[in-house]
Amino acid sequence: MVMKFKANLKVMLKPSVLDPQGATLERALKSMGYHQVSSVRVGKLIELVLESESAEAAEKAANEWADRLLANPNMEYYALSLESIS
Amino acid sequence: MVMKFKANLKVMLKPSVLDPQGATLERALKSMGYHQVSSVRVGKLIELVLESESAEAAEKAANEWADRLLANPNMEYYALSLESIS
Repeated sequence: MVMKFKANLKVMLKPSVLDPQGATLERALKSMGYHQVSSVRVGKLIELVLESESAEAAEKAANEWADRLLANPNMEYYALSLESIS
Repeated sequence: MVMKFKANLKVMLKPSVLDPQGATLERALKSMGYHQVSSVRVGKLIELVLESESAEAAEKAANEWADRLLANPNMEYYALSLESIS
């Protein structure tokens, strides 16, 4: 039987990689008077729906997509979460 | 006492707004042979650390930042999650 899953893939720059977008937002917040903010990082959140025979196969497929297309292993790390929606 | 919190702010285009980046990734995955994928959407994940007197005040501050700077209420919606890290 084919099941449907919703995958959430968080893709962030590695901690050692400079994040200019995060630095810009942090500066903007501070210039608005919010000095209690720090360590702002901006990443991507990719949501998708996939059909699969099992949760294991769905996880394998989504990891494959992250490795082959969605994340850049040189500069980024990713975290995947899956939930059944059928 | 000042406490530290890690905030995760998910910012996505509203469902009614066309997401060309998501559509492009979906087409790319399908062209690689992965036809079981659909509904790809790409959003932002903003991680930050904030200092606050209480969890309530931290949540209020992070929502204010989303409303005033980090999300575009015309085209985007956001979801905030907070965890204490001190």
